Amino acid sequence: MKKIKIGLLGFGNIGTGTYRILEMNHRKIAETTGCELEITRILVNDPSKKREISVPSGKFTKDPDTILNDPEIDIVVEVLGGIEPAASYMLKAMKNGKSVVTANKAAVAANFAELKSVAAANNVLFRFEASVAGGIPVLNALSTALSGNEFEEISGIVNGTTNYILTQMTENGSAYEDVLKDAQAKGFAEADPTADVEGIDAANKLSILMALAFGKYVAPSDIPTTGISKITKADIDAAKERGCKIKLLASAKKNGNDVEYSVKPVELPLSHPLAGVSNEFNAVFVTGNAVGELMFYGRGAGSLPTGSAVMGDIIEIAKAVAAK
Amino acid sequence: MKKIKIGLLGFGNIGTGTYRILEMNHRKIAETTGCELEITRILVNDPSKKREISVPSGKFTKDPDTILNDPEIDIVVEVLGGIEPAASYMLKAMKNGKSVVTANKAAVAANFAELKSVAAANNVLFRFEASVAGGIPVLNALSTALSGNEFEEISGIVNGTTNYILTQMTENGSAYEDVLKDAQAKGFAEADPTADVEGIDAANKLSILMALAFGKYVAPSDIPTTGISKITKADIDAAKERGCKIKLLASAKKNGNDVEYSVKPVELPLSHPLAGVSNEFNAVFVTGNAVGELMFYGRGAGSLPTGSAVMGDIIEIAKAVAAK
Repeated sequence: MKKIKIGLLGFGNIGTGTYRILEMNHRKIAETTGCELEITRILVNDPSKKREISVPSGKFTKDPDTILNDPEIDIVVEVLGGIEPAASYMLKAMKNGKSVVTANKAAVAANFAELKSVAAANNVLFRFEASVAGGIPVLNALSTALSGNEFEEISGIVNGTTNYILTQMTENGSAYEDVLKDAQAKGFAEADPTADVEGIDAANKLSILMALAFGKYVAPSDIPTTGISKITKADIDAAKERGCKIKLLASAKKNGNDVEYSVKPVELPLSHPLAGVSNEFNAVFVTGNAVGELMFYGRGAGSLPTGSAVMGDIIEIAKAVAAK
Repeated sequence: MKKIKIGLLGFGNIGTGTYRILEMNHRKIAETTGCELEITRILVNDPSKKREISVPSGKFTKDPDTILNDPEIDIVVEVLGGIEPAASYMLKAMKNGKSVVTANKAAVAANFAELKSVAAANNVLFRFEASVAGGIPVLNALSTALSGNEFEEISGIVNGTTNYILTQMTENGSAYEDVLKDAQAKGFAEADPTADVEGIDAANKLSILMALAFGKYVAPSDIPTTGISKITKADIDAAKERGCKIKLLASAKKNGNDVEYSVKPVELPLSHPLAGVSNEFNAVFVTGNAVGELMFYGRGAGSLPTGSAVMGDIIEIAKAVAAK
């Protein structure tokens, strides 16, 4: 059985999830790909750090080049987060002939065209399913099973932290500040929640969705973006009286030859499929000129759900490598 | 640009939808595949029949062999419906080196192993996304983006006719017989509705879902199947009082090393994501050991939605042919 070696850049939440999935579903993954997949090296800041997961210590390295320059590594998985050095590492891996998988929406959204073109120029694969809506396989669907459609609309609840906060405000009548503190205590929101609550994370994801659905790249910073930090109990109650729920919606719609796009809180009628998407769940609503209305619903974050998307990309690349 | 020639077996609802999509999205499909796709021949009973769609009459043929034996045709699309002669035509096309796309759940469910093995033996592709849940790209997701998961459950509302009838009975308090007549008048139910209302159509789809998700083939006739023809207004009202809706559910769940499966009407609590799936819409609920709970929602039937799934399969095959 052909061996495929994988280098992991980063070993936080998503990196450990990916490692765990390869351990727990090893047999199925070998049957599916016809290959023996192994994570041979993992870039970390501190190889001696105590971890909840048992990994042979020889796999850890502090030097990215021992992964990026290793001729035995076929696939580099980037789960560091942040734009740099993540993007530079991905480009270097591609130039060294390695296919790349990433979960990093900020790095993909900021460097979409360059990452795609360097992958093509080096005849390697570049996949980023996990960068939008975690485990929900919407990017793959847009690029494959739905690719016979011209898309008319892509709208989604693509940030779990803000959806959790809005759901709790709606269901329990709590104030924004109180729910945010509670979410931080439970690990659903980060100590600095700015990227989530101000819609920046959602704008990164919308940039990627638009590039795939409409072939139109808009930098995240050019997407009109309003977060939820100004939403009050009074806003929630007023929406309720109108039979609506407030959701942070990342939305792009065709209008003639233009595309209109924004990230902002909107009132959705209770009958809208996205109105029933609660707490940390994500959903993406797609309208195509052939398929009509579709919705994809699931977990948009978390170690194993996001790891599932990373592993799906690894498997597709492994199949392609094995077929060579 | 490489030319890829397609032969259509059948030109009913799905066949005309596929033809229309290739016309209306021709430019995008050419960009996506890097190929010029053309439907060159279409098998029909009556080439001289008046049709709503304009097709050069020279494309029509009454003789299947002018498609199955045409060395210029790369892809055969089977949209005849029914088990035979559809299955024999697909096998003959594969043995003649053609990749095959079908929307035919009955033929796929009855001949799953043989169709897969003959495709593999002849080194051609065989795809059948449209056979389950119309335009919803669930089969592709199970086989690609989600393939790093061991699946625990697949449950779905996969028959639009019965979901329309149950929804109307629930929302309007109508009797089964009255809604069925109304559905037949509107074209949502066939003159002989047996395959839909007795759950046979759903059992075909569950057989295919199980084969993909669990690698376990169960013939549709071996799936315990109960339809909705015995559901009364009293049943619907009793479910309502318990805070539930009755839905015809096709369901398969892992239980240790076994899989438990059935098609039957069940009471779903209103909080279940499938309870909100109304009228002719379909949805498939998937639980994987990494991704957790996912749901795919959309149009499970209709000319363009089902044609969208057929076209997605054609595009994937065209990409593979172009890469050779």
